[in-house]
Amino acid sequence: MSVTRFGISLESPLLKRFDRLINKKGYASRSEAIRDLIRDSLVTEEWKSDNTETVGTITLVYSHDTRELNDNLNDIQHHYHQLVISTTHIHLDGHNCLEVIIVKGKSEDIKAVADRLIGIKGVKHGKLTATTTGKRLK
Amino acid sequence: MSVTRFGISLESPLLKRFDRLINKKGYASRSEAIRDLIRDSLVTEEWKSDNTETVGTITLVYSHDTRELNDNLNDIQHHYHQLVISTTHIHLDGHNCLEVIIVKGKSEDIKAVADRLIGIKGVKHGKLTATTTGKRLK
Amino acid sequence: MSVTRFGISLESPLLKRFDRLINKKGYASRSEAIRDLIRDSLVTEEWKSDNTETVGTITLVYSHDTRELNDNLNDIQHHYHQLVISTTHIHLDGHNCLEVIIVKGKSEDIKAVADRLIGIKGVKHGKLTATTTGKRLK
Amino acid sequence: MSVTRFGISLESPLLKRFDRLINKKGYASRSEAIRDLIRDSLVTEEWKSDNTETVGTITLVYSHDTRELNDNLNDIQHHYHQLVISTTHIHLDGHNCLEVIIVKGKSEDIKAVADRLIGIKGVKHGKLTATTTGKRLK
Repeated sequence: MSVTRFGISLESPLLKRFDRLINKKGYASRSEAIRDLIRDSLVTEEWKSDNTETVGTITLVYSHDTRELNDNLNDIQHHYHQLVISTTHIHLDGHNCLEVIIVKGKSEDIKAVADRLIGIKGVKHGKLTATTTGKRLK
Repeated sequence: MSVTRFGISLESPLLKRFDRLINKKGYASRSEAIRDLIRDSLVTEEWKSDNTETVGTITLVYSHDTRELNDNLNDIQHHYHQLVISTTHIHLDGHNCLEVIIVKGKSEDIKAVADRLIGIKGVKHGKLTATTTGKRLK
Repeated sequence: MSVTRFGISLESPLLKRFDRLINKKGYASRSEAIRDLIRDSLVTEEWKSDNTETVGTITLVYSHDTRELNDNLNDIQHHYHQLVISTTHIHLDGHNCLEVIIVKGKSEDIKAVADRLIGIKGVKHGKLTATTTGKRLK
Repeated sequence: MSVTRFGISLESPLLKRFDRLINKKGYASRSEAIRDLIRDSLVTEEWKSDNTETVGTITLVYSHDTRELNDNLNDIQHHYHQLVISTTHIHLDGHNCLEVIIVKGKSEDIKAVADRLIGIKGVKHGKLTATTTGKRLK
């Protein structure tokens, strides 16, 4: 694949902090680290256009002691079963559950199911992580 | 303030998409756009490191066509196998993979394994999502 | 690793059928195919001794329309949460769920949790698959 | 009935454990024990192949130290990505991996991918568990 080389200018103290960060993160070069930042910004953009097919994960932490919470979570996921690829459930301890739901579809639909799941009474923490189908990233 | 100029290399299709994005966002130059991405990454890094046990997910998208990428991902995960609870792998299409790794441990250790995995050459997009064991949330 | 070579005798028609089977399954040699059969018999044996640590999967198919079934499944899994590593849930359609529970522990405990889960009213099909930690198989 | 004699090669520690097992089970010879394993495998194969859509799990245990094993497993799964819903990977210890692959499709296709995965050199133990879409079970 063809590669383009170009120059950028950065304030020296910012560059020093960035160099420390990429060193700590183990990147081989500034180019690689900046490439990752650029890809991330493109993924975020992909999510703003509601009709692109994209991929995300919905992370939920809740206590299974709240009755009917499991039924509610499962009902909503089945309602959207064409979006949900798979759900991984970890029994964190005798009470707390972690559920990671992998979804694929239009970003507006993904956001809708995430909002409904995160909003259920009894969910302690919920987060939608936007990622990508990878098709448009080289 | 002193400014440093340096060169970076990017795959041409990625650079084209980035140029369209920064044009749309109204940046005056690539340097300005990249400066903002770098500042953001430094803020995220400031997420304070501590010794509390916590839970997170690491989301990776990559093409399985890059040879040895799978071995590298698996080697690193095994190196940290006491942190990794389970990994879910979705074959998005004939080429692209989504891997969602559920980790539990000290936040600084979780960040270390996330940085190593996301930094592997061939990973198109990677993200650490911090959540919680639920123990201290009522 | 040292390898031992030895001879075995088989009725010719049986050997012919076996050769067709291993050819169909894509094995490179009779040795490889027989090695797999031997390993499987050792895994089965590992499971008969109740105190060895071992690994298994419990596969359940049920309809999420049965109320409280999800709560019951989750309660039992939490009760045994030290055995359960992770659970993957697939929404097969608007009604049917597949749940695959990965367990690690003494075989008698694994059998106990499998029996309780498979026995829940509303579970259409359940199966315990015995595998191994891999430690004693070279 | 005519009998054929042929040689096979086995790793010595595996052969030692097998010898202990067949001794415990009271077999007169290795040939007799292996003959029984082969008959069993032929019976399992007779599971009649049809065109109904069904669901199964493929359970694999392997050591990630075998180079390229991960790439091979991933390549085959991508080749059949329309059958594979999701794969859960557990890092059992520093070396051993458990992979549970959830598949949905025609039973003959499921058997084909299971055979290819289980037959890969380096897989210590593999098993196909047949279950159901639940649709025809009330």
